[in-house]
Amino acid sequence: MLMNLLYGVVSMSSSKFTTNINRITVSKLQVPFNEITLSNGEKILTSCVSGDLNNFPNQPRHEERYKDAYTDGDVKKVRKTQLDYAKEGILTEQMEYVAIRESMGVDDVNKMAFTPDDILNTIAQGRAVIPSNVNHPETEPMIIGSKYAVKVNANIGASQLSSNYTEELEKLKFSLMYGADTVMDLSVGIEGIPLLRNAILRASPVPLGTVPAYEALDRAGGNIKNLTWELFLDTVIAQARQGVDYFTIHAGLLQQYLPYAAKRILGIVSRGGSIMAECMLNQDRENMAYEHFDELLEVCHDYDVALSLGDGLRPGCINDACDEAQYGELKTIGALSARCYKAGVQCFIEGPGHVSMDKIEENQRLEEKYCNYAPFYTLGPLVTDIAPGYDHITSAIGGANIAAFGTAMLCYVTPSEHLALPEKDDVKKGLITYKLAAHAADLSKGLYGAKLRDDAMARARAEFRWFDQFALSLDPQHAYEVWSAKMPEKCSHDAAFCSMCGPRFCPIRLNRTLKNKYL
Amino acid sequence: MLMNLLYGVVSMSSSKFTTNINRITVSKLQVPFNEITLSNGEKILTSCVSGDLNNFPNQPRHEERYKDAYTDGDVKKVRKTQLDYAKEGILTEQMEYVAIRESMGVDDVNKMAFTPDDILNTIAQGRAVIPSNVNHPETEPMIIGSKYAVKVNANIGASQLSSNYTEELEKLKFSLMYGADTVMDLSVGIEGIPLLRNAILRASPVPLGTVPAYEALDRAGGNIKNLTWELFLDTVIAQARQGVDYFTIHAGLLQQYLPYAAKRILGIVSRGGSIMAECMLNQDRENMAYEHFDELLEVCHDYDVALSLGDGLRPGCINDACDEAQYGELKTIGALSARCYKAGVQCFIEGPGHVSMDKIEENQRLEEKYCNYAPFYTLGPLVTDIAPGYDHITSAIGGANIAAFGTAMLCYVTPSEHLALPEKDDVKKGLITYKLAAHAADLSKGLYGAKLRDDAMARARAEFRWFDQFALSLDPQHAYEVWSAKMPEKCSHDAAFCSMCGPRFCPIRLNRTLKNKYL
Repeated sequence: MLMNLLYGVVSMSSSKFTTNINRITVSKLQVPFNEITLSNGEKILTSCVSGDLNNFPNQPRHEERYKDAYTDGDVKKVRKTQLDYAKEGILTEQMEYVAIRESMGVDDVNKMAFTPDDILNTIAQGRAVIPSNVNHPETEPMIIGSKYAVKVNANIGASQLSSNYTEELEKLKFSLMYGADTVMDLSVGIEGIPLLRNAILRASPVPLGTVPAYEALDRAGGNIKNLTWELFLDTVIAQARQGVDYFTIHAGLLQQYLPYAAKRILGIVSRGGSIMAECMLNQDRENMAYEHFDELLEVCHDYDVALSLGDGLRPGCINDACDEAQYGELKTIGALSARCYKAGVQCFIEGPGHVSMDKIEENQRLEEKYCNYAPFYTLGPLVTDIAPGYDHITSAIGGANIAAFGTAMLCYVTPSEHLALPEKDDVKKGLITYKLAAHAADLSKGLYGAKLRDDAMARARAEFRWFDQFALSLDPQHAYEVWSAKMPEKCSHDAAFCSMCGPRFCPIRLNRTLKNKYL
Repeated sequence: MLMNLLYGVVSMSSSKFTTNINRITVSKLQVPFNEITLSNGEKILTSCVSGDLNNFPNQPRHEERYKDAYTDGDVKKVRKTQLDYAKEGILTEQMEYVAIRESMGVDDVNKMAFTPDDILNTIAQGRAVIPSNVNHPETEPMIIGSKYAVKVNANIGASQLSSNYTEELEKLKFSLMYGADTVMDLSVGIEGIPLLRNAILRASPVPLGTVPAYEALDRAGGNIKNLTWELFLDTVIAQARQGVDYFTIHAGLLQQYLPYAAKRILGIVSRGGSIMAECMLNQDRENMAYEHFDELLEVCHDYDVALSLGDGLRPGCINDACDEAQYGELKTIGALSARCYKAGVQCFIEGPGHVSMDKIEENQRLEEKYCNYAPFYTLGPLVTDIAPGYDHITSAIGGANIAAFGTAMLCYVTPSEHLALPEKDDVKKGLITYKLAAHAADLSKGLYGAKLRDDAMARARAEFRWFDQFALSLDPQHAYEVWSAKMPEKCSHDAAFCSMCGPRFCPIRLNRTLKNKYL
């Protein structure tokens, strides 16, 4: 249904290709996938979610999987997290489910690239995470880990100057339509953030992340002096109860690193990081999330919220990358990730930021070293500072690179980064750009199934099956529009040329002669 | 003048930044540069051309530098090429000129990162090229080599279905405005190609490249049977006389490689390559450009045309990359490049195409090995096949990577690649995308001066100097529009926030407190 929405627009112009959502039934689980049926009968299957975007709010579909949850007043808590189960060697339905999702291929979905046991073992090692708050039953399970397909997160959320309730739900729709694997709600400084978040949670079939420090500061009336640990913890508990699947907490930003940050051109650019730092400076105390980390772990364990250990000292420009502030914080985060693991709380590690290409591999390797291969989740990185308006591209270059080195999830950057709050169209551009970067990394990693779609595209090109090319594209409607705008009206869909070379010079036609002679 | 055109639009909205073209005078040479003056008095200098785009055709400005040329009928030929001079240790004005262009920095243009002797030595080794046909005196010398700033080529040209004379000159203007270092005219299948090319040459302050096989086939009436060597050579001579600065010739595509190409999904996708292959198949003969290579060398030497040894077997999809067809041809090209060097003809090597990220470094290293470090000039490569409509991005990811490994020049890819002939706006998007990819590679290589602009941008961000940020951007007008669309009308240009976080949460402001406390 979801993907039909996407492909439906092109379908109106032609019946040459069709796309359907179908479900694979394996051991009682129904796992949706997108089936791209080509004009020659080939089928390409891709992973998707089945959330019905036209019927907000969604019905809870996976409640039955949370049978271990117990009721605490009007909310549910879990007895065990996915990590607890994995450590004990107990297979969960979530693990089975993601094993199927990660094994998608052409016509052989039953040939599993990853078995449920593979998934279990990787989670047990702390090298992969299934974010799934027991109070977010609308989630369709997905996994974040370097062995698996690279995931993409889309940030949405309102700020004081821009956006409203309806617009944010529209951004969520767009995010899902263009393939966001998780969504973060980064709303700040507006009224009614909890209500907005609840609407997003109830509508979202993908895990939702937040930065609780934002709401905590709102609750403190925007006054850093009033931001106490009790208020922070209350916010975290309230969000966990609502069903948020992962929290970005900047607990590794310690006082000892602030002098290094002061030496930078751009100091601290992380919003959550700057809230923590401002608290530390204003109240002359150590990072409260660091000091009370065990309490955070308890809440996260209660609801199986994953911790996204935030890099409050991520570099904000090329000059500031890879300094003592960044790497010092990363070491502390590594120690915190070990505490998460011990407590049975799933966690992953946030990374930069702005990094020149020569230092990208170093970032990945140090993360693995300090954090014992917990999944890495980066914001790009942007490989130059001089292209505002095009930072979806500067960051996709860095993102594709670091993902090829092993980063598990990329946080998208939209074209309006550094300039303005993204609008719907920015969300689309950011996501398409990051989906292609993630796919490039999947190809580079030699991931099972990744190349099948590229090969199908190449065959469609060789045979001038234009509408099959559109169907296989990350953005079929856009590809179709660019193509059709320049083709003569009377040309059929099978035209053995395009406007780039015109009918006389198309090199692709020669290939038939070649094959006839040599094969 | 050129850059004023670019920045002029933003200047209308504000007088907060100004940009001027200035000239550095060193040993009688006048080398233009773009001077970005910031509101705090800082100046950033960037390389540019001074061609006046509003006064086509341009006046020849560098005729005096071709004093060694002699007249052959109504055309000029050279006695010695830049490579000949370099081998003999003779410094030319072109070498001095590019030494200044490559040494641009903040406020210290006289501190040369590269001396004329560095340039001479690199050319003498065959590791860099200054394309400058004696009959194209409008050219302002530039250098292509892995030691220097990564260059970007923009393809323009009409096809049978699209574009006309005026439109192509407009595309040239756009190419120059957005920083193309060379331009290729790839017109095919239309009337009046030589006239169009002459107009482009007379207007272009950057080197112009062509693929002579296109016009040769046109001269043969589009019938491959009539494409003889005599006709091919006549075309090459006519274009050399007009002033074309480099020729893409697919002389390495030999009969022995065709069976490998036949095994591919997409066979041959190079237009020039397919013309040569069709000739070979149709006439059952070896590649005529290979057989008559010495005659080509003679023409190129006569006018100092550089040879861009074309990869007719470049892969057209991820599946076809790095196979026996591609690497076999590369070996042959390596042997041809040695013959160029011996004959005193400057040359560089064309590369792919479509390559997954894990194989990009291998492509660069094999090129260096087979071709003895002649400059590499690649088309992307695209790192996935599934994003038509976004192939400026898929290819910029590959391009930034291979350039960081040492590729000297990137041929841009526009968003309409695989779908249609690019229009003006595509030219702009392709160029901005490639300029940022090239700059990312310059940063990665640690090139002198590259980081100065990024650091100036970071300082402007730290101090909320918005108009300085726009001035430092690759596309100031676009950055300004994205920013201003969402800022409240009454906010001044010094607003210490943007719409992304709104006035309350901006993390950048904290940094003043940090610096006050720790520095």
